[in-house]
Amino acid sequence: MINANQLRRFTEQIFQSIGCPEADARLAADILVAADLRGVDSHGVARLPGYVRLYDNGRLNPQPQMRVVHETPSTAVVDGDRGLGLVVGPWAMQVAIEKARVAGTGWVAVRNSNHFGIAGYHAMLATEHDMIGQAMTHAAPLVAPTFALEKMLGTNPIAVAIPALTEPTFLADFASTAVAYGKLEILQRKGQDIPTGWAQDADGNPTTDANAVRNGGALLPLGSDREHGSHKGYGLGAVVDIFSGVLSGANYGPWVPPFATAGFMTAQEGVGVGTGHFFGAMRIDAFRPADEFKAHMDTWIQRFRQTRAIPGHQVLIPGDPERLMEAERTANGIPLVEPVVKSLEELGERFGVKF
Amino acid sequence: MINANQLRRFTEQIFQSIGCPEADARLAADILVAADLRGVDSHGVARLPGYVRLYDNGRLNPQPQMRVVHETPSTAVVDGDRGLGLVVGPWAMQVAIEKARVAGTGWVAVRNSNHFGIAGYHAMLATEHDMIGQAMTHAAPLVAPTFALEKMLGTNPIAVAIPALTEPTFLADFASTAVAYGKLEILQRKGQDIPTGWAQDADGNPTTDANAVRNGGALLPLGSDREHGSHKGYGLGAVVDIFSGVLSGANYGPWVPPFATAGFMTAQEGVGVGTGHFFGAMRIDAFRPADEFKAHMDTWIQRFRQTRAIPGHQVLIPGDPERLMEAERTANGIPLVEPVVKSLEELGERFGVKF
Repeated sequence: MINANQLRRFTEQIFQSIGCPEADARLAADILVAADLRGVDSHGVARLPGYVRLYDNGRLNPQPQMRVVHETPSTAVVDGDRGLGLVVGPWAMQVAIEKARVAGTGWVAVRNSNHFGIAGYHAMLATEHDMIGQAMTHAAPLVAPTFALEKMLGTNPIAVAIPALTEPTFLADFASTAVAYGKLEILQRKGQDIPTGWAQDADGNPTTDANAVRNGGALLPLGSDREHGSHKGYGLGAVVDIFSGVLSGANYGPWVPPFATAGFMTAQEGVGVGTGHFFGAMRIDAFRPADEFKAHMDTWIQRFRQTRAIPGHQVLIPGDPERLMEAERTANGIPLVEPVVKSLEELGERFGVKF
Repeated sequence: MINANQLRRFTEQIFQSIGCPEADARLAADILVAADLRGVDSHGVARLPGYVRLYDNGRLNPQPQMRVVHETPSTAVVDGDRGLGLVVGPWAMQVAIEKARVAGTGWVAVRNSNHFGIAGYHAMLATEHDMIGQAMTHAAPLVAPTFALEKMLGTNPIAVAIPALTEPTFLADFASTAVAYGKLEILQRKGQDIPTGWAQDADGNPTTDANAVRNGGALLPLGSDREHGSHKGYGLGAVVDIFSGVLSGANYGPWVPPFATAGFMTAQEGVGVGTGHFFGAMRIDAFRPADEFKAHMDTWIQRFRQTRAIPGHQVLIPGDPERLMEAERTANGIPLVEPVVKSLEELGERFGVKF
């Protein structure tokens, strides 16, 4: 068990070691540790070595000059200058928030960025301003569209954060796949099978092999198969890809660069520049008075919590599981698995930072 | 087989018979027949008797005075004055398009409306103006959230229409459930079982009973069960409900009125006014030059069409199946099942319109 503050401090020092300014390093560390606190371990400090590898491969600019390259009253396109997505994301979200202040809503497409961590963190930034926040990103291809044998889309998550009055914020934050890749990795480590409906093998057949995606198979879209609506998950992932990549001028589809290996650096190599994201901020009082809306959100949340449930279960509000986990891990510390501890120790040794 | 033009003319006359102005009746008929042409039979003229019943029950105002009740440069709230959703929807989408012309994007929440037909029709309206269109609506509760025994959400569809240059428009248009309710009705009529993963029985167990939803069961969110991501389908349906209902001042969740029976008429009876929708229009050149974007959409579409596929299958672009069906039914006519023919004949007799 590791204390969140200690983990944040260590992570911040590593980001500073590769040249990030102090404020950027602190922000990036906060997003990674937020993922660990919320139980999204695959997007937390486990990724820190990956970000360093991104730097080693020359794909990460630790001191980016982010800029708005095109705009209207309610939109902007941001060039992330190869910065950390963990830094570019909040910067772009701030642009969306400023647009929303004046125009009612703000929508920002980002190119030339890198992996931005958990989508929910960015979406939540809008709620501090009585706005609804949205964040989505594409990612390196792991997912086969319905009937495909090729990996064409990333897990392409969407997050929507909606503030309430006395209830906690509604936060839907989910990949457009049946399951996050991190869940396969956990079962790989345990040598266990996966349920059918998560992945297909190299021939497109249903599989229970946790290593299928590494062996020519692919993750399946939300819905798992055609009969259960996998074309809907594919459609959702495609929209995320087009908003993040095609609107912004980033890469898209199978051209989205892998997380941390050497990859497409210029539009001449791919079909666009780097990785892309898409953010939205909607001022609540651009629709109705904020307190009135938030009181109705309380009613919505309370009514859904009271839903008659299957015995032994309860109906949760999107965001509940992560919030409960955050409270527990803030109090008791974050459990890190041995390979992650080892990789962080190695980073610490390399940069002379005590882990 | 019935010719689309004849069906459109008949439907238009029925809408005029209940008092709709000619232009509104023509628009409403066009949307219903568009659904039949695209193969979404459950949302086509099969619903015409339902709209008439809505009128009979005093819930439908055939001559609504639609108006913008609140606005900012990029947003508006529209009161549909109990009009046909088939008429209120395009009117609200037009407001979104006008907002987008000036502010880059336009976002319109609608209350006091009724069922608006297929979401895709509304989203497509934006593409004629080199804009990306979005349309979503909530509906009467048929769906149990993950672990619930109660029906709390409608099938809550989302449509996103994205124009390309030489390729046809990308159109994702899907319910946030594993399957549309219409598919259960088809198997009910044939006396056949449904696959597990579509619905649950009254005790929350998986079922193959096509009548389960009528007998105390519920439709399942996209993802089908917790292990395959049903909480994601639930989250998506919840966002559609909140955008359509809570942002607009309509009802929401279990309070959304049923399609065509007598239902909540005032905010005093429910938690808001009527049924709600949410529309968006994003000007492409608010992000990058439209022709450049559309050329990249061509690349996106062509690359996805070329995806290596499972033998005997091909990878489709969202919108392909409906487009192929539309071409086929425009040429050869629309097949209507016997109960629908009978119900239309009855309407024809009642209003003295020849079917």
